[in-house]
Amino acid sequence: MMKLNANQLNFSGGPGALPETVLQQLHTAMLCVPEVGLSILGISHRSEWFAQVVHELEDNIRQLMGLPATTRVLMMQGGATQQFSMLPMNLLRNGQSADYIHSGYWSGKAIHEAEKSGKLQLAWSGKADQFGRLPTDAELQLSTDAAYFHYISNETVEGLQFHRVPGREDVPRICDMSSDLLSAPGEFNRYAMIYAHAQKNIGPAGVTLVILRDDFMHSLPSDLPGFINYHAQADAHSIYNTPPVFAIYSVLLVTRWLRDEIGGLHTIAVRNQAKADCLYQVLDDHADFYRGRAAVADRSKMNVVFNLPSTEIEQAFLQQAREAGFSGLNGHRSIGGIRASIYNGLEFAATEQLAAFMQVFRKSYQPAQKKSAGRSPAYA
Amino acid sequence: MMKLNANQLNFSGGPGALPETVLQQLHTAMLCVPEVGLSILGISHRSEWFAQVVHELEDNIRQLMGLPATTRVLMMQGGATQQFSMLPMNLLRNGQSADYIHSGYWSGKAIHEAEKSGKLQLAWSGKADQFGRLPTDAELQLSTDAAYFHYISNETVEGLQFHRVPGREDVPRICDMSSDLLSAPGEFNRYAMIYAHAQKNIGPAGVTLVILRDDFMHSLPSDLPGFINYHAQADAHSIYNTPPVFAIYSVLLVTRWLRDEIGGLHTIAVRNQAKADCLYQVLDDHADFYRGRAAVADRSKMNVVFNLPSTEIEQAFLQQAREAGFSGLNGHRSIGGIRASIYNGLEFAATEQLAAFMQVFRKSYQPAQKKSAGRSPAYA
Repeated sequence: MMKLNANQLNFSGGPGALPETVLQQLHTAMLCVPEVGLSILGISHRSEWFAQVVHELEDNIRQLMGLPATTRVLMMQGGATQQFSMLPMNLLRNGQSADYIHSGYWSGKAIHEAEKSGKLQLAWSGKADQFGRLPTDAELQLSTDAAYFHYISNETVEGLQFHRVPGREDVPRICDMSSDLLSAPGEFNRYAMIYAHAQKNIGPAGVTLVILRDDFMHSLPSDLPGFINYHAQADAHSIYNTPPVFAIYSVLLVTRWLRDEIGGLHTIAVRNQAKADCLYQVLDDHADFYRGRAAVADRSKMNVVFNLPSTEIEQAFLQQAREAGFSGLNGHRSIGGIRASIYNGLEFAATEQLAAFMQVFRKSYQPAQKKSAGRSPAYA
Repeated sequence: MMKLNANQLNFSGGPGALPETVLQQLHTAMLCVPEVGLSILGISHRSEWFAQVVHELEDNIRQLMGLPATTRVLMMQGGATQQFSMLPMNLLRNGQSADYIHSGYWSGKAIHEAEKSGKLQLAWSGKADQFGRLPTDAELQLSTDAAYFHYISNETVEGLQFHRVPGREDVPRICDMSSDLLSAPGEFNRYAMIYAHAQKNIGPAGVTLVILRDDFMHSLPSDLPGFINYHAQADAHSIYNTPPVFAIYSVLLVTRWLRDEIGGLHTIAVRNQAKADCLYQVLDDHADFYRGRAAVADRSKMNVVFNLPSTEIEQAFLQQAREAGFSGLNGHRSIGGIRASIYNGLEFAATEQLAAFMQVFRKSYQPAQKKSAGRSPAYA
């Protein structure tokens, strides 16, 4: 098995691991961006070089996602939280209502913030099932006259992921893809708007990717203050005011890596599938010990969430995992347990290594099932 | 004269030069933060380490500025633009009006954005004087019943800086100190709120420092969406949602540098004064050639703005300065000319070197005044 460093064994739910090659380029850029001769932190956002960075980044996103040239690609601040708070401020001012799916922790946050500025309709809630599964199409209650329909493609806390595109074609479909955008191809042209903070698959915390279909953008109000005005942001190509230069440059490097080294979203999807299969196989083989949280059909390829027979065993798991060099495996503070986040930057070898660890750990706690009795785990 | 590298000769208006020692630490942190063992880009914002970063940063700011422990120190996203847009959304909802000084490009922007969400009263405008000076106290028209009074302490574009605290004591005083906060001591306890984006004296673009007097914060509404809600941001110690971890860590390093290497705001103020004196001396000695833009009494210690006898000579100046290793000397795109920004990160030696360049350049364009006629400039 190849030798991985600490950054490569980072299974954090976010900010997540970035590809080693991107980290190396950013390490260099801190002192000197080769094409410019200055630290990335001292380069003007009004320089020609930075205009090129934004231009190439917009193009790379459209190319990777298969979007037409008319699609607006913005880099904004404030995270997904700002986006799901801005949406009703932009779209529900006239008293119209919007449809929301409540499928877990983060869609719940989106609903909570949106309710402060507009009227919502619940299309479905997974609360009764403790957010252990996603809805079928038949279960969704969708309005024909909603201003928009909002859902989240991947719930990072619960480890649930939509493997289809829900919603009506005659209502603007808006999706928070913060934790799975750029992890696989998709039918992205069916969305009026897609947004994703960077710190899972796309780059460091501090920048949010917003993708707007041109016709949808034209339906948005243009009289709002610039920082929450999609027109102002789009017209300025994300340089309405000083943008987070470093974070945007980092995202450019990630898109180059995806395009040139990985070879696009089809290839990264194959790799992500293999990583997910590697870990879910351990869960399926030892379901009495590794208790997967999500319904099998709705399992996330980004966040593998599970419990162990007791919180004591979970603590021992986390402790021994840390000692073995893994980090970020603790579940979200709202539900506890274990979460292995396997975003784009994480290599297959890291999941192999974690799967091996899980096998050895289980044997030390289920001695009856041991093949070679009496052996203590190598990392203990 | 000491040998300076390209980052140390960066006179950009912002993002500006950061101290060499901070850049070196960030260079290391890109691959591994020593105390954590992970890249700064892969560390969770919910980790104990990051909570400590925020805690120390809040303390350092209060200590450097001489603020009581009750003062709230926030790190937010969206730049000064978000702050001056949020202010009326928070404070003018009940129809009350606010007083604004219009002293240049950036206070004009603040007024433009604020007008979208509230009613303003102009306390003074420098437009008739082409923003070449600041008002006297007698010229200010201040309301007694304003919700707040807003001004900008340093106009980066025009190179104007207030060297006193304007405004009434019985109206909340709010100041945009984006381009001079932490550059000198001040009577900071006389402000209800101070805000400053980081990319001048404080850190990289992507984070904004917001300082709120406790009693003023309690007067703000608490029902707004979290991303524009000061209560929500303060209660969460700037971790309401994922903050820009890298930018915040950078600001911590800058405050440590100010505290430990520089020795506080009094010392940095002496250094900044010396840098400003060094350049203004050249302007004063050759006022027919280097034509300072700001009235002498209102000169900025952060941005030395001047014109040359013609735009052709200005272009030649910028071209030769680039060849001599200086960068970022072009004036703001709105007014052209030359601007030497001399923020905290820039060392005195850099202004000495620029002053020397200015002397040589002038001689090559004013041959009659040359001491040693016929010598061509060394850097040409």
